[in-house]
Amino acid sequence: LDEDAIRAARLRQDSLTKPRGSLGRLEDVSVRLAGIAGQCPPPLPLPAVVAVFAADHGVHAQGVSPWPQEVTAQMVANFLAGGAAVNAIAAQAGADVRVVDIGVATPLPAAAGLLSRKVRAGTADMTTGPAMSAQEALRAIETGIEIARGLVANGHRCLITGDMGIANTTASAALIAVFTGADPAAVTGRGTGIDDPTLALKVDVIRRALALHSPDPADPLEVLARVGGLEHAALVGLMLGGAAERVPVLLDGVIACSAALAAMAFAPSVTGFLFAGHLSTEPGARRALDALGLEPLIDLGLRLGEGSGAVLALPVVATAARVLRDMATFDSAGVSGEKA
Amino acid sequence: LDEDAIRAARLRQDSLTKPRGSLGRLEDVSVRLAGIAGQCPPPLPLPAVVAVFAADHGVHAQGVSPWPQEVTAQMVANFLAGGAAVNAIAAQAGADVRVVDIGVATPLPAAAGLLSRKVRAGTADMTTGPAMSAQEALRAIETGIEIARGLVANGHRCLITGDMGIANTTASAALIAVFTGADPAAVTGRGTGIDDPTLALKVDVIRRALALHSPDPADPLEVLARVGGLEHAALVGLMLGGAAERVPVLLDGVIACSAALAAMAFAPSVTGFLFAGHLSTEPGARRALDALGLEPLIDLGLRLGEGSGAVLALPVVATAARVLRDMATFDSAGVSGEKA
Repeated sequence: LDEDAIRAARLRQDSLTKPRGSLGRLEDVSVRLAGIAGQCPPPLPLPAVVAVFAADHGVHAQGVSPWPQEVTAQMVANFLAGGAAVNAIAAQAGADVRVVDIGVATPLPAAAGLLSRKVRAGTADMTTGPAMSAQEALRAIETGIEIARGLVANGHRCLITGDMGIANTTASAALIAVFTGADPAAVTGRGTGIDDPTLALKVDVIRRALALHSPDPADPLEVLARVGGLEHAALVGLMLGGAAERVPVLLDGVIACSAALAAMAFAPSVTGFLFAGHLSTEPGARRALDALGLEPLIDLGLRLGEGSGAVLALPVVATAARVLRDMATFDSAGVSGEKA
Repeated sequence: LDEDAIRAARLRQDSLTKPRGSLGRLEDVSVRLAGIAGQCPPPLPLPAVVAVFAADHGVHAQGVSPWPQEVTAQMVANFLAGGAAVNAIAAQAGADVRVVDIGVATPLPAAAGLLSRKVRAGTADMTTGPAMSAQEALRAIETGIEIARGLVANGHRCLITGDMGIANTTASAALIAVFTGADPAAVTGRGTGIDDPTLALKVDVIRRALALHSPDPADPLEVLARVGGLEHAALVGLMLGGAAERVPVLLDGVIACSAALAAMAFAPSVTGFLFAGHLSTEPGARRALDALGLEPLIDLGLRLGEGSGAVLALPVVATAARVLRDMATFDSAGVSGEKA
C-alpha cells in the first residue's frame, strides 16, 4: 500500500466538517482505499463487478450435502438468466455479474455472460486422493489472475468474489483447518443448512481427508490441489490479480475467506487489498477473518454464497470513498471548530 | 402491519432459489416491508429522502459541548451547499436531502432546499425550566407529520431521519433515561468526543434536569417539552406521519432512537414501521434500541448524526425488497430442491 497516500487520506479525513473519527470504520476504509490506489482522494470503487466462479466437488459423493450435484449447473443457468440472489443484489448495487465455469462437472452450453474456463469437470473426492493436480490448481489460479486483469482492463475498479459449487463449504472448512491449524469441528458449519448427523459426517470427511494428505500450510499450491476446489484456486487468482492491478477486492463468505488464506500464504501483502464484505454464519468464516486480520463490514446472518454478502457491502465501500472525495473541509465551508 | 402480506412474503421467501433462511436478516426486512406496504412483494423503498431537522438547545449554556452554538447554523449552510457527510452519503445512496429549520437559534436566510419551519429560536435551558412549552412541542410534532405527508405525496417511498443541533445528545440522553428508566450515567455518551470532565458535567446536567422536572414517561408530550429538543419532537412527527402513510422510516443514531421512544409512547404500533439504520457508539442508542425491539442493520462505529448512519443502511433495505421482488423461484428457474 502507498504510505504517502495513506498519510494524505488521514490528514484529509481530519479536516472534513465532522468531529474527528465520527465516521468510524468508514474512515478506515477510505484511508485503505487511498493506499490501494496510491492517490488521495482515491477513485470511487466503481464500476464494480462480481465474478462468480462455479465448480463441482468430488467430495459430494461422501454425502456432505443434501443438494444434488446438478444444482451447480442449474444455478449457473439461473445466474445467466438473472434470477439468483446475487443478480438481485448486484442490480440494486449497480454491480455487473460475470459467471465463470472454472470446473462444473457437466458441459455447459455457451451463453452470453458465461466465461468458459473449465480446468477440469469438477474435482476428485479428497477422501480418496488429491482433489486435483498441482498443475490444475495452478491453471485455475492463473485463470483467476487473467480474469482480474481483463475486468480491470475493461474499466472495473472493484472486484467482488462470487462462488457456486454444491459441497464447496466442505473444501472451505478443510482449507481453513489447514491454514489456521484449527480443529475441523471448530471450522465446519452447516452450509446450506444440514442436520446434525450430516454435520458430524462432514467433520469426519474433513478429518479423513486431512489425515490422508497431511497438507503443509507453507505450500499453498499443494494445499489447494489436495483439499481445495477449482473455484477456491480461481478466487486466489482473482485476489492476487486485483492486488497487482491495485484495485480493492471484496470478499464474500466462507469460500472466499478460505481462498484468501491461500492467497495470503502465497503473498502476505495481498490482505491490504482485501475487504471482508460480511460475516458469514459459517464458523470457519470468523476464524479465517481473524487470521487475515480483517473485520467484516456487514453482519446480517447471511450464509448464501454466490457473492451475495460482498455485493451487499459494496455501497459501504463506495460511500467511504465518496465521503473522502466530496465532503467540505472546515475551512472551505466556514464552519467553526471545537473550542480548545 | 398487514398480516396477509407478511404471510405471503414469508411463503415467497421460502420459494426463492436459495436455501431457506440463507439471506438472514435481509429476509426479515423484506417480510416487514411487505407488512408495512400491505402488499407482496412490497414496492422498493425508493426514492428515499433524508429529512434533516436542525435546532438549537438552551442546555448548551451549561457547557456540555466544546462546539460553539453557531455551528448548528453553519452546518445547515453546509448541508445546503452539499458539503456535509450526509450529502456525500446520500449522493452515493441516491437519496434526496431536505433540511428543515425547526428551531435554529439564529435567523437563517431563505435558500433552495431549506424548509423554514422554526417553532422557536432554540429551546430554553432544561436545567432551569422546561425546554419548551407543550404547545411548542406539539407544533414541532405536527410539523414533522406534515413534512412526512408532503414527502410521501411527492413520491418518496422511504423516510430517513436526520438531525443537527449542537448539544442534542444531552437532550437525547435525558429522553432515553426517562423512557427506559436507565440511570443517566448509563445512557450518556461523549457526543462529538468530549473529555472525561465534560462527560461528568453532562451527566450531572441531565441529573439536575430530571430532578427539576420529574418527567412522567406516560406523558410523552410533557417529556419532550421539558427535556427534549425541537428536532426530537419533529422526528416523532416524521415517524408517526411515515407510519400513517405506510412507508418505512429509517432511524439514524441516538437522537432518532431517543425520539422513537417518545413516538412509541404516543403509539406503540409505530415501531413496526421503523428500521434501525445503524448502531451509534453513544451508549444510549443500544439501550433505546433494546426498548424499541429493533436490531441495527449496520454497526461501523459511526457517531456523527445528520442521518449519516441511516442513509448508509438504505441500500440494505432496498436490497431486501429487491430480492423478494426479483428472484426466481425453484419452479420458475428449474432448480432442484434438497433431497428429503
